Amino acid sequence: MHRVWNVEINEYNSTQNRKYETIFTLANGYRGLRGAIEFSKIGERGNFIAGVFDKNTAQVTEIVNCQDPLIFNIYVDGEIIDIDSTNLLDFNRSLDMKNGILYSNYKVELKSGRILEIKTERFVSRNNVHRWAAKYIIKPVNFKAKMFIENIIDGTVVNSTLDLANLTKHFEVLDAEDFKPGIALKTRTFDNKIEIVEATAVLSEDENGNIFKSRKYTKLGEKVRELYEFFVEEGKEYTVFKYGITYTSRDTKKELFEVAQRELRDFINIGYEAEKEAHSNVWQRLWDGMDVKIKGDDTAQIGIRFNLFQLASSAYPDDPRVSIAAKALHGEGYKGHVFWDTEIFMLPFFVYTNPEVAKSLLMYRYNTLDGARRNAQLNGFKGAQFPWESADDGTEVTPKWGVDYDGNPVRIWTGDEEYHINSDIAFGIWEYFRATKDEEFLINYGTEILLDTAKFWNSRLEYNKAQDRYEINRVIGPDEFHEHVNNNVYTNYLAKWNMKKALEVKEWLKEKDRIKYKTLCNQLGISDVDFKEWEEKLNKIYIPMAKDGKLIEQFEGYFDLADIEITEHDENGMPVWPDLKGHKLHDTQLIKQPDVVMLMLVLGEEFDLESKKINYEYYEKRTMHKSSLSPSMYSIMGLTVGDTQNSYKYFLKTILTDLEDNQGNAGHGLHAASTGGSWQSAVFGFGGFSVDENEIPNFNPWIPEVWDEFTYTINWRGSKVEVTVDRKNVSIYSQKDIDVKVYGKDYSIAANEKLVVAR
Amino acid sequence: MHRVWNVEINEYNSTQNRKYETIFTLANGYRGLRGAIEFSKIGERGNFIAGVFDKNTAQVTEIVNCQDPLIFNIYVDGEIIDIDSTNLLDFNRSLDMKNGILYSNYKVELKSGRILEIKTERFVSRNNVHRWAAKYIIKPVNFKAKMFIENIIDGTVVNSTLDLANLTKHFEVLDAEDFKPGIALKTRTFDNKIEIVEATAVLSEDENGNIFKSRKYTKLGEKVRELYEFFVEEGKEYTVFKYGITYTSRDTKKELFEVAQRELRDFINIGYEAEKEAHSNVWQRLWDGMDVKIKGDDTAQIGIRFNLFQLASSAYPDDPRVSIAAKALHGEGYKGHVFWDTEIFMLPFFVYTNPEVAKSLLMYRYNTLDGARRNAQLNGFKGAQFPWESADDGTEVTPKWGVDYDGNPVRIWTGDEEYHINSDIAFGIWEYFRATKDEEFLINYGTEILLDTAKFWNSRLEYNKAQDRYEINRVIGPDEFHEHVNNNVYTNYLAKWNMKKALEVKEWLKEKDRIKYKTLCNQLGISDVDFKEWEEKLNKIYIPMAKDGKLIEQFEGYFDLADIEITEHDENGMPVWPDLKGHKLHDTQLIKQPDVVMLMLVLGEEFDLESKKINYEYYEKRTMHKSSLSPSMYSIMGLTVGDTQNSYKYFLKTILTDLEDNQGNAGHGLHAASTGGSWQSAVFGFGGFSVDENEIPNFNPWIPEVWDEFTYTINWRGSKVEVTVDRKNVSIYSQKDIDVKVYGKDYSIAANEKLVVAR
Repeated sequence: MHRVWNVEINEYNSTQNRKYETIFTLANGYRGLRGAIEFSKIGERGNFIAGVFDKNTAQVTEIVNCQDPLIFNIYVDGEIIDIDSTNLLDFNRSLDMKNGILYSNYKVELKSGRILEIKTERFVSRNNVHRWAAKYIIKPVNFKAKMFIENIIDGTVVNSTLDLANLTKHFEVLDAEDFKPGIALKTRTFDNKIEIVEATAVLSEDENGNIFKSRKYTKLGEKVRELYEFFVEEGKEYTVFKYGITYTSRDTKKELFEVAQRELRDFINIGYEAEKEAHSNVWQRLWDGMDVKIKGDDTAQIGIRFNLFQLASSAYPDDPRVSIAAKALHGEGYKGHVFWDTEIFMLPFFVYTNPEVAKSLLMYRYNTLDGARRNAQLNGFKGAQFPWESADDGTEVTPKWGVDYDGNPVRIWTGDEEYHINSDIAFGIWEYFRATKDEEFLINYGTEILLDTAKFWNSRLEYNKAQDRYEINRVIGPDEFHEHVNNNVYTNYLAKWNMKKALEVKEWLKEKDRIKYKTLCNQLGISDVDFKEWEEKLNKIYIPMAKDGKLIEQFEGYFDLADIEITEHDENGMPVWPDLKGHKLHDTQLIKQPDVVMLMLVLGEEFDLESKKINYEYYEKRTMHKSSLSPSMYSIMGLTVGDTQNSYKYFLKTILTDLEDNQGNAGHGLHAASTGGSWQSAVFGFGGFSVDENEIPNFNPWIPEVWDEFTYTINWRGSKVEVTVDRKNVSIYSQKDIDVKVYGKDYSIAANEKLVVAR
Repeated sequence: MHRVWNVEINEYNSTQNRKYETIFTLANGYRGLRGAIEFSKIGERGNFIAGVFDKNTAQVTEIVNCQDPLIFNIYVDGEIIDIDSTNLLDFNRSLDMKNGILYSNYKVELKSGRILEIKTERFVSRNNVHRWAAKYIIKPVNFKAKMFIENIIDGTVVNSTLDLANLTKHFEVLDAEDFKPGIALKTRTFDNKIEIVEATAVLSEDENGNIFKSRKYTKLGEKVRELYEFFVEEGKEYTVFKYGITYTSRDTKKELFEVAQRELRDFINIGYEAEKEAHSNVWQRLWDGMDVKIKGDDTAQIGIRFNLFQLASSAYPDDPRVSIAAKALHGEGYKGHVFWDTEIFMLPFFVYTNPEVAKSLLMYRYNTLDGARRNAQLNGFKGAQFPWESADDGTEVTPKWGVDYDGNPVRIWTGDEEYHINSDIAFGIWEYFRATKDEEFLINYGTEILLDTAKFWNSRLEYNKAQDRYEINRVIGPDEFHEHVNNNVYTNYLAKWNMKKALEVKEWLKEKDRIKYKTLCNQLGISDVDFKEWEEKLNKIYIPMAKDGKLIEQFEGYFDLADIEITEHDENGMPVWPDLKGHKLHDTQLIKQPDVVMLMLVLGEEFDLESKKINYEYYEKRTMHKSSLSPSMYSIMGLTVGDTQNSYKYFLKTILTDLEDNQGNAGHGLHAASTGGSWQSAVFGFGGFSVDENEIPNFNPWIPEVWDEFTYTINWRGSKVEVTVDRKNVSIYSQKDIDVKVYGKDYSIAANEKLVVAR
């Protein structure tokens, strides 16, 4: 069993360091610590704290790469251990996903012929998000010597170290302090003056207790450092624990050094092993509610768990001012910005496994509503326009301009035109409510978002007098190969849905809480006059369709573009660029990802199977999958329409996005949407879980030949439901009484009983 | 001719980087810039400004390693040029000593197969000590690409980077500024609040003028940076000039950014090539007054020039608050402290080639007299006690304690017991005056030092009633193998000389300037009562001698120590440790360097040839040469007593101390005493130059078989005197009328005439 809980590597290649820093990132939603190797300088270290954003001289506001508390240098006499310049005899790293612990083992031979073994453990606590720790077991194999350990907190960190032109410093170092035990460094971001303290302490131990002979504390400009000297004997093992505490002024109003010092002492008092156990226990509880088990296919088993592990690592329900970024807390890619990825790809996982997290993700949108209102106002619209890229306050932070290789400016239009984010968020609210029936949320927060996004759409609609219809022109849909298009179906369909749902929900609210309804109308500046207008206009929103009424046109005029199909696939099964025959990409029907298929997944109950099949087949031949969001959609829809062969292929593509680095940029951070897509492929796709128009859970599972057994767990309205599929049966266990449909037939399951249905 | 003006290497080995950083240091007395390679991170960079000292948390006050202006990163696309991690196809560095320019050539092959050639020049101006510059010629051999140049001033520099336990930061970064063109970083030392500004600018050029396409200025915590983007074509050459300006608050009271910006603009206006020419012209004039030419022996020729070049590079006569440290401005070794090395080993070179510098070195001692007086007072003595190690103010800065390998404290006694520094300085004053007859100096500064050091000795003498003699007990002589010895002959003899010379000179002063004499007595608290006491006591100072009256005993009881002679020498001709037969080193007659021989060199006219011979032979067999000061003494004395064979060997040892790194620590900085010893070996030794008791220059040259011709130049009382020795003749040219003795015979040389004497 151990094997299928671990992501493991046994070979070292420094050019892969960045990739494995992402894969081995340890995060707890509050913070992410990239999986850097203490004994290598190659890579791109990262210490990100959710919500700590800054702009300073960067192009846009971005997540701050904070001071680095991870530095732990080991010296034999004066010679530093650096695996890139010494002889590495043995190397192994392993992420234990069951317990959330990263293990690394190194055996190095120094120039002097001395051989040293170092075994390390590291965890970022889920028991107390402010804590992280590491353990180092050091063994001089064939020598005795004087050694040093240098514990440093490094404040020279900058963002974009590898992007010469955009390298930016986001904080100044305010002060260092000697905590005795431990050291601390306080910094402050430039724009919002967020103070950040990292504090660490190292404690050593062998059978005689402490091994250290002397300590020296030094402040070195932007760094603080403590140096320990000790003496080692051949063949003995020496253990050093490193304790870390992180606090920011977002967490407390108290003086941060004081808070951190008290916390660090408490942590040391509790001890490394006790905290590790408490941390593992949290992971046990999490896995209990979210694990997906695949017997007979280890690659799929490890792969799906990796995605669940990292997605679950990225959530922090205690802070409703933060969400999960496109690269989570795992790298500087996309600058820590939050996209539609969160609501459309990641949110379902939380809705059905950990609804408390889902609520906090939606609360982030609620808490950034004022920014969204400012966006609408700046763009000449009404209501709330959520930003395509969102940082700390909801104002649009998509860069307006990039540069090409030659340094020529290239305009980026997504922040201006990719409006669908607004209905994606509205949809997320509805999905959460439908699964949880959390009325308190819908009354106090959800309705306000639904109404203000509807108000935006109403102001955004353009009337086409000739056709007597409402249009949304000059937009970008999910497929970003085509910019400035008119009447994108994904955009228009969901805008209409958004307005309709807002009208439904305000009726519901009027019933539930008349006072809240009245004050909300008052606050949002809306009345029955507006509702009437919305009603009239939404029914005239133009949805482009092919002449046969089944094949949907991605946007108005799409079918008139050069129709170039994909005919070849590479050794990874990914499409090979076809000959464009002189056309520019945006003048062809080739797409980055499939807007229509996406729409049919989001609003599955609104489309019949034939439509799904027709559109799946048409767009699959034209989709280049140049987004990590794309394969998972095809995996789920493939199972719906019966293309099981491709579904399994797309599923593997999805779950191995980072592990195989099949988009080639895992080093930038986690493909967080893909982690959510992995879960959706597993549960909505193979697990065949859906909710029908009567809000009854449906189960229509299918599993590939290679799988012996497949199990997943969901939370349906507070009840844990476990579904197991093997070659013969579908078994469904429920904690509470529940009505379900399996393969279209109705069943009632009593609390704590198991329904078994033959396949 | 070019060959014998260049120190050149053609092979790269990163473990030698520190050594070559010392050898290729460029200095102008105001500052020293270690010869770091821009494209390697291995080594120990250094930027030292004379007089900028700080203690902060270091053990003692030390020379500050200031912010580094040398950083110049070249990137091809995003890949940095780093010769340690790319394929180095061609490598060559060459120090042109004639013009004071360091050339480096690199040809690297990147991982991508791209080949890049970089040719660099660098100089630290002697025309304007605040200026330094570099030139980079970049040639993409087989590619076209986008490139970046990153010009950085790095304020993260600390002292003792390689000494983990003593690593110290000596300044805080105050501010950075964008000079447009150029960047600047202002720092401030902790203790004395000395402000330091480094400013640099880069300007590019090809046949169309500027090559840069864009510039970005960034402040990154303790660093300031400008990034330039440009595009290169295969096979073309691109030239980038880097201009540097350095100012400190020791130089001016004006705001440093303003001063530096104006200076930087002036420098750019004048241009790289014009400044380089002015700089070379200064070197031409310097060489004209100091060159030593050896025909027929290229090793000796390059070696002696290297020593003269680096010694001349270390002097800055315009600042009488600084002197030349034991490691000059070439490294952090000995913490930038000034020892007796300066007066005894280096001063003679300047006295006889550039008396203005000699005066400024002595003025440093005058300007630190108050510190010397505080030392005497703290130690319970009177007058002035110059410190064994001196930094900025003359107070003792020798560390009291070191640690052994196991971390046990080891007491360092030199700062307490190595008193002879006082008479070494007194002797330096006399030597300068004897050669220059600079009465103004002796009246206003020299006499005060002579009297106050004599006053110290008078208070230090201990009366031995039983023997009716004065003793100086518990001291360390130049030979530091023996601590706490009584009546060290070097110490006692020179203390006596110091007191006697003070009495002589005060008589002279009384004649010359009665008012100055009176005020001086008043200030120093001395009168005829004291002078009488000094007179009485100095004649009773005990000088230990062997019973035969010729062999001098290094200190009282030395001859009673275990007499272990050196019998073997290693392949470099250096002594091999003999078997100590169970004795501790300090219980044997083995010595680090020869006190008696040293004494006979300093006060050569006071000892007859037989004495010199007897003592040379006795001590030579017992000297381990564990000081770089030692071989040169044997070289000179060997020629005096006729041991020519060994003299040549010791001469080579001396001149190659750093080039061959025969003490194994060239990386720490220049062996500055050895550079002075090299000149003394050449001029006093082979050149046979001495001044007799009648102050007549004597010439008794001898040259080894391998030398075809040997020429040196001295300045005798303002007249340039050039001496050429070949196999047949000694030729002496003088600018002015001069009386000389050659091989013991008197001659008069008329101005601008040449005397030729057959050998």
